Amino acid sequence: MATSLQSPRTAPDADHATAQLARFVAGSRGASLPASVERAACRGFANWLGCALGAADDEAVRAVLAVARVLSGREQASLVGRADRLDAVNAALVNGVAANALDYDDMHTPTLIHPTGPVVAAALALAESRGAGGKVLLCAVVAGIEVECRLGLALFPRHYDRGFHITATLGTLGAAAASCVVLGLDAARTQHALGIAATQAGGLRAMLTNACKSFNIGKAASAGALAALLAEAGLDSEPAVIEARFGLLDAFGPAQGAEVLTRDLGVRYLLPEVSLKPYPCGVVIHPLIDACLAAATRGDSLRPAQVRAIRAWVHPRALELAGRAHPVDAIAGRYSLQHAAALALTSRAAGLAAFDGADVNDPELVRLRESMSIEPDPALAPAQARVALELDDGEVRREAVDHPCGSPERPLDDAQLRAKFMELAVRAIEQPVAEELFELGMGLAQVADIRELARRWSAPRP
Amino acid sequence: MATSLQSPRTAPDADHATAQLARFVAGSRGASLPASVERAACRGFANWLGCALGAADDEAVRAVLAVARVLSGREQASLVGRADRLDAVNAALVNGVAANALDYDDMHTPTLIHPTGPVVAAALALAESRGAGGKVLLCAVVAGIEVECRLGLALFPRHYDRGFHITATLGTLGAAAASCVVLGLDAARTQHALGIAATQAGGLRAMLTNACKSFNIGKAASAGALAALLAEAGLDSEPAVIEARFGLLDAFGPAQGAEVLTRDLGVRYLLPEVSLKPYPCGVVIHPLIDACLAAATRGDSLRPAQVRAIRAWVHPRALELAGRAHPVDAIAGRYSLQHAAALALTSRAAGLAAFDGADVNDPELVRLRESMSIEPDPALAPAQARVALELDDGEVRREAVDHPCGSPERPLDDAQLRAKFMELAVRAIEQPVAEELFELGMGLAQVADIRELARRWSAPRP
Repeated sequence: MATSLQSPRTAPDADHATAQLARFVAGSRGASLPASVERAACRGFANWLGCALGAADDEAVRAVLAVARVLSGREQASLVGRADRLDAVNAALVNGVAANALDYDDMHTPTLIHPTGPVVAAALALAESRGAGGKVLLCAVVAGIEVECRLGLALFPRHYDRGFHITATLGTLGAAAASCVVLGLDAARTQHALGIAATQAGGLRAMLTNACKSFNIGKAASAGALAALLAEAGLDSEPAVIEARFGLLDAFGPAQGAEVLTRDLGVRYLLPEVSLKPYPCGVVIHPLIDACLAAATRGDSLRPAQVRAIRAWVHPRALELAGRAHPVDAIAGRYSLQHAAALALTSRAAGLAAFDGADVNDPELVRLRESMSIEPDPALAPAQARVALELDDGEVRREAVDHPCGSPERPLDDAQLRAKFMELAVRAIEQPVAEELFELGMGLAQVADIRELARRWSAPRP
Repeated sequence: MATSLQSPRTAPDADHATAQLARFVAGSRGASLPASVERAACRGFANWLGCALGAADDEAVRAVLAVARVLSGREQASLVGRADRLDAVNAALVNGVAANALDYDDMHTPTLIHPTGPVVAAALALAESRGAGGKVLLCAVVAGIEVECRLGLALFPRHYDRGFHITATLGTLGAAAASCVVLGLDAARTQHALGIAATQAGGLRAMLTNACKSFNIGKAASAGALAALLAEAGLDSEPAVIEARFGLLDAFGPAQGAEVLTRDLGVRYLLPEVSLKPYPCGVVIHPLIDACLAAATRGDSLRPAQVRAIRAWVHPRALELAGRAHPVDAIAGRYSLQHAAALALTSRAAGLAAFDGADVNDPELVRLRESMSIEPDPALAPAQARVALELDDGEVRREAVDHPCGSPERPLDDAQLRAKFMELAVRAIEQPVAEELFELGMGLAQVADIRELARRWSAPRP
């Protein structure tokens, strides 16, 4: 009798989603990508690299590295912005932590996944260890993000609402898929890799206001890389893990619907819909930042002391995730609508320098936060925000934002991305080297060997 | 305003479950254990060690080791039954795979957790790496199993029914707790370690009929060890991860009730309720094995050819988990009521030799499996089975089992445990060394340094 433990078998023409995704992943290596997809992948890679360079000496990176150094095997892959070379799985761990630590990465809006973090960390480490080139890496990143975000479309929001850190859980499978492309695994071994990844997938949203937020991402990257290596070494798994009884959709669902997993696979790509962040904080905060920046810079420039009271209206989810008038530290400040708004009004900027240069207990920021009233407005879309500043002379400045900077409707252009990259990269490497890296990253398909980039992103550290 | 991201703070007198469990764990090191608990811990350790020795050359172990060797850092801990020494986290991985691979380990019946697997693998590797002694290891194992099984009592059956491999998920926290004891972490660092473990917890039941079944356990052990090492290095996490919003109970629940987590903590221990398996297969099969063994050996000994038909009645869950008349391979055979019953009738035994010596496609076994009718009987308890053998001369032999061998009501005695250990251990090491190891394990509190055991369980391998 069929039991709960039996599952669909592997067959070359199996049509279940795991098999279809595996065939897509295996076929990605060397595939020609549509121009818009290749461009988005290069920009996403450069964005990831900038973020990792900017956080290479972050406290969380140092704590994880202290342990990873002892555990690391053969030197296979370089840490971004540091001098160490670790085994590929540990390099994926540490680089994954770094790339996420500043909360400056990217966003796939329909699923709240930050796609490049775990996917690039894993693929990059394996690419360096195997001497792969930029074209293979690009194909790997595209395939990994496709798997990751399609799973997100099937599982969001229920999976997220239960408390799972969706970038970490589904990022493990995305990282595994990308790793399979780098290693050149066939579709059958890729099915097993996806199984080995799925059974390691974990990550709790309770980590989102502490140092483990980024550890979750690093862990997803290392688990995904490990899954591909184990599949390559012959470890068998459940070949239909997505839909198997007690597989991914069962445990992490209920799923919105599995059809989205394979609809238009290889025809419509999700990567061009991924936004690169203009501000190093939660994306739900970005509309309010834009509104405050506009209010602070429109007409006569505003002195913060003029602001007597602030009223703002945001999407309810923004308030749920980031309504915190009294952030206790810098990490919590990255998740505070009030803090970001106060920064925008005082610094007239909300980039890295503004966040880093601010003390959450600065009296002016405290005053502005406390004079803020933020209301949820269900009539607003997540991308919208409204603000009204009451000034001491009775003027009221109103601003409305419908699509914030960095959103799919108003993406960072290449010049803005370069400026973001440079601001981050010079925290770790010399400016001329950073400029070379940016150009190489934006033309990644022409890079013959990833090690050309690795020697540029390595940097001495104490 | 309080947001979904805020959580209870760490305080020395905090009374939430994570804090209470962490104080219990931190206080375990050097605590004097009740005699029954210490005895159960020694027996559980010896059982674990035997299982790991017996499977040291298992296919899954070799596949995982091939990758772990490349990834392994400083040589800190020995692989059981092999010559390699790996870093503690990779040693926990490989030893955890080995200890589970034969499905011969242990069972905490109320939660279906196999407790020692991940807990001992993690604690042992760190104990060897830090030069700890047997008493510390014993305390670590007791604390880890307590945390693991209490979480199980809170989360079973809903967590398991969703498709999570409960030994892997909750074993990650048990392994972390045990590791904290070995490292001598205080209560606050232990809280962080539990958080770092919880955010790595994963494992799908879809792996239960393939090589990743044991990988899940090894992964839990390595993740738990890593969590303690990271906490020791200063990585901060969510200090109340069990009850925090979007923490363990939220994501893995709903919980049956959190009160069970701390009731009689340090007064009533769960370890003495853990059963050591007498047969290398799923425990739901054991009652039927006992019934068939009794039928085959009662009165005139039975020749299999005499058996014309078999009728059996088991608890419905047994049939749901292990009703498979046509197991395709040896792993599937470990989850087949029909196969185990046929073995018991033909071999008059159901130990390792019986399972290993049988070809699932042996015509006699096929015939017996196909002449078997197994019915679910909701009136039976999980520990019960009934069998009726119709013989060719018209005789009907009936047997009824209410508490199978190995159950809490009829535990293996020390002589049976020794016999089990020896059968397993001689697959890897010489008999005299195996006998020494068993004695040392059963008197673990007197072992000054775990390395005394490590040099005995190491063995050359190709």
